[in-house]
Amino acid sequence: MEKETLRIEGFSDAVFAIAVTLLVLDLHFPQENSIKSGNDLMIFLSNQWPSFLAFILSFFSIFIMWVNHHKIFKQIYSRNSAIMFANGLILFLVSAVSYPTALLARYFDGQASSVVVAIYTSIFVLINLAYNLLWFVATRNKKLLRPGITNAAIKQIRNNYLYGLPIYIIALILSFWFPAVSLLIILGLWIFWALSSGKIEMTLDKDYSDSLK
Amino acid sequence: MEKETLRIEGFSDAVFAIAVTLLVLDLHFPQENSIKSGNDLMIFLSNQWPSFLAFILSFFSIFIMWVNHHKIFKQIYSRNSAIMFANGLILFLVSAVSYPTALLARYFDGQASSVVVAIYTSIFVLINLAYNLLWFVATRNKKLLRPGITNAAIKQIRNNYLYGLPIYIIALILSFWFPAVSLLIILGLWIFWALSSGKIEMTLDKDYSDSLK
Amino acid sequence: MEKETLRIEGFSDAVFAIAVTLLVLDLHFPQENSIKSGNDLMIFLSNQWPSFLAFILSFFSIFIMWVNHHKIFKQIYSRNSAIMFANGLILFLVSAVSYPTALLARYFDGQASSVVVAIYTSIFVLINLAYNLLWFVATRNKKLLRPGITNAAIKQIRNNYLYGLPIYIIALILSFWFPAVSLLIILGLWIFWALSSGKIEMTLDKDYSDSLK
Amino acid sequence: MEKETLRIEGFSDAVFAIAVTLLVLDLHFPQENSIKSGNDLMIFLSNQWPSFLAFILSFFSIFIMWVNHHKIFKQIYSRNSAIMFANGLILFLVSAVSYPTALLARYFDGQASSVVVAIYTSIFVLINLAYNLLWFVATRNKKLLRPGITNAAIKQIRNNYLYGLPIYIIALILSFWFPAVSLLIILGLWIFWALSSGKIEMTLDKDYSDSLK
Repeated sequence: MEKETLRIEGFSDAVFAIAVTLLVLDLHFPQENSIKSGNDLMIFLSNQWPSFLAFILSFFSIFIMWVNHHKIFKQIYSRNSAIMFANGLILFLVSAVSYPTALLARYFDGQASSVVVAIYTSIFVLINLAYNLLWFVATRNKKLLRPGITNAAIKQIRNNYLYGLPIYIIALILSFWFPAVSLLIILGLWIFWALSSGKIEMTLDKDYSDSLK
Repeated sequence: MEKETLRIEGFSDAVFAIAVTLLVLDLHFPQENSIKSGNDLMIFLSNQWPSFLAFILSFFSIFIMWVNHHKIFKQIYSRNSAIMFANGLILFLVSAVSYPTALLARYFDGQASSVVVAIYTSIFVLINLAYNLLWFVATRNKKLLRPGITNAAIKQIRNNYLYGLPIYIIALILSFWFPAVSLLIILGLWIFWALSSGKIEMTLDKDYSDSLK
Repeated sequence: MEKETLRIEGFSDAVFAIAVTLLVLDLHFPQENSIKSGNDLMIFLSNQWPSFLAFILSFFSIFIMWVNHHKIFKQIYSRNSAIMFANGLILFLVSAVSYPTALLARYFDGQASSVVVAIYTSIFVLINLAYNLLWFVATRNKKLLRPGITNAAIKQIRNNYLYGLPIYIIALILSFWFPAVSLLIILGLWIFWALSSGKIEMTLDKDYSDSLK
Repeated sequence: MEKETLRIEGFSDAVFAIAVTLLVLDLHFPQENSIKSGNDLMIFLSNQWPSFLAFILSFFSIFIMWVNHHKIFKQIYSRNSAIMFANGLILFLVSAVSYPTALLARYFDGQASSVVVAIYTSIFVLINLAYNLLWFVATRNKKLLRPGITNAAIKQIRNNYLYGLPIYIIALILSFWFPAVSLLIILGLWIFWALSSGKIEMTLDKDYSDSLK
């Protein structure tokens, strides 16, 4: 059975790649004529730490989303309108990440800290929901999936995204009181995804080789 | 028969993906030192609603255009200069969409409302014309198309684009008196494309499997 | 014989696609609070005609360069360092086109008109030289080319690029006295490429089918 | 054995292509109304030489990194989490290059010269480390590599990156006293990579054809 989703994957990859690379445009420069020495520049750059933090956090968040997108689409062989539009929703949210990132960079270190972290975590809640939606519409009809995929594998991927949801929501709620803690949770989820990514891979590979027997 | 249009599709996908992802750069930030509290930021952001509206409207419009582009090129197997340049015209207009989008974001909520909506709808009229042109030049010579495509399928795709034209023109005319209605029509066309996209798919799939008999 | 240049083509396509899509970022917006009515906006936009002209001219120039790049790489099957770096030079110049385009947009309608047209035509002279270089290094060793390509076909492609060179140089020289004429020549070359592109295609297709006999 | 890394390569190519093409956005324009004649523009542009230098230096540095990335991934056939994240680190640093490039463009010709060259060379040190890391994690398990790759070939690639490291570190140290010399060293490394690239190619090709015997 031929994989029909190659052009969707190519388009999605391009959107992820552009979204991730545009983040650097949010890093700022000193105002003209404000730098009289190397020291001035060092001071300016060290005051920019929220920008660098936001850049790194968003880069790797989008990168891990891409890894997960990759992983989901390895299991999807056909497409229908629902998959197209659930994927479109993911791409929309991914392309939008740079805006809350830039807000975070500008206002994390100030009075609007809670608001920007709440907005920033909200977009990750939405992205998580969109991934859950994509996997939900893809698995409603097993004919769209990789031939031979087991229910255990389908369920493991579903759980992987479902478990992320409450954690992102907790990060969102905490942002009103402890914005720094929320960012630490998002950072912590990287480690979770990185580890679970290895585990899912193994199940699916086993699943795949079983299907060839 | 080998498909000759893969590199054109790849290039087109990249242009669509970049055009869609650059839209986020039109979202604005508060002027420096104007935000003293989270509340200031909330007020600023809520005043930016035309920017968010324009961003969403243009993102999904370009996304649906990409879905349609995808669909047309699944039927085109060879290329000639006319196809190359009709496609170039589509890409030019798609890459330009962010400019009227940014005008809409800035002036929809003000005295120049009609003018910006008229410009915004005009670009969709032009894009519709360019899609009609592409399908016209591709179908003049059936040897360029997927082997076995039926006249019914060719006609259904043609009608799909032709029917869009008067609706976009109505949206353009209405923009001078009721700019908000014009935008609603463009939004309504999303639903039309999403639904018709499923129907065309079915015809073409039937067509394709008939051609294998 | 397997084609080894697919990843180079993919990378090049991406650079062309981004270069062409970034051009829209050079279109300007009115200063804040300067637009009191739809009429103000119309006046602003009509004064922006050099920006729109430069955008259109550069978009289709890069697009035609991409068509030509496509055409050359259909004949190149292997790569060596010289091809990699000649191609790198083309990509560098293509990615740079937006800068002279923006200068043209800003100063074509003013005292610096000749200087900006001279810079703008210079980059096309350089790009033409880079294409000639690419074809020169690719044809030094026929083993790098498509098996069965005839000397007539190699020569026709070479001439196609060599003939462009004096025309671009004439446009460059004329820019000091008649900048508008220089732009017309560059526009005229589009028509030349579009027509010659069809003709070369035919020769190469005949060449290709002869090689199969 | 099927190559599993195609989508990683496509994504990486896109990031490289965008990073390299966004560099042009760092070239600046004269302030409005500051240009009264062609001569004013010539003076402005000639004062911009550090921007042009930084643009050229970064473009070809990233381009050569892409050539090397290409070369490494021709040897990697499977992927695991470690490869994914080492590659993610490379892409992060590559996407970040435009920021130190812009700092270099602004401050190379002034009091902060040493600081910006030190930052600029630091990012190349980090990128070199990331390439060493990628090749280290890829070669820990030979099953991930191209079947038939010899230990000699693995070692030659490793040395190629290891030898770059001390040179980048020397460039970094020298930047505090002789910033211009540091840039010359980075420029010199282009020639080294271009030459060694040819040599590695030959070894690997021999290696590859030996593996077929």
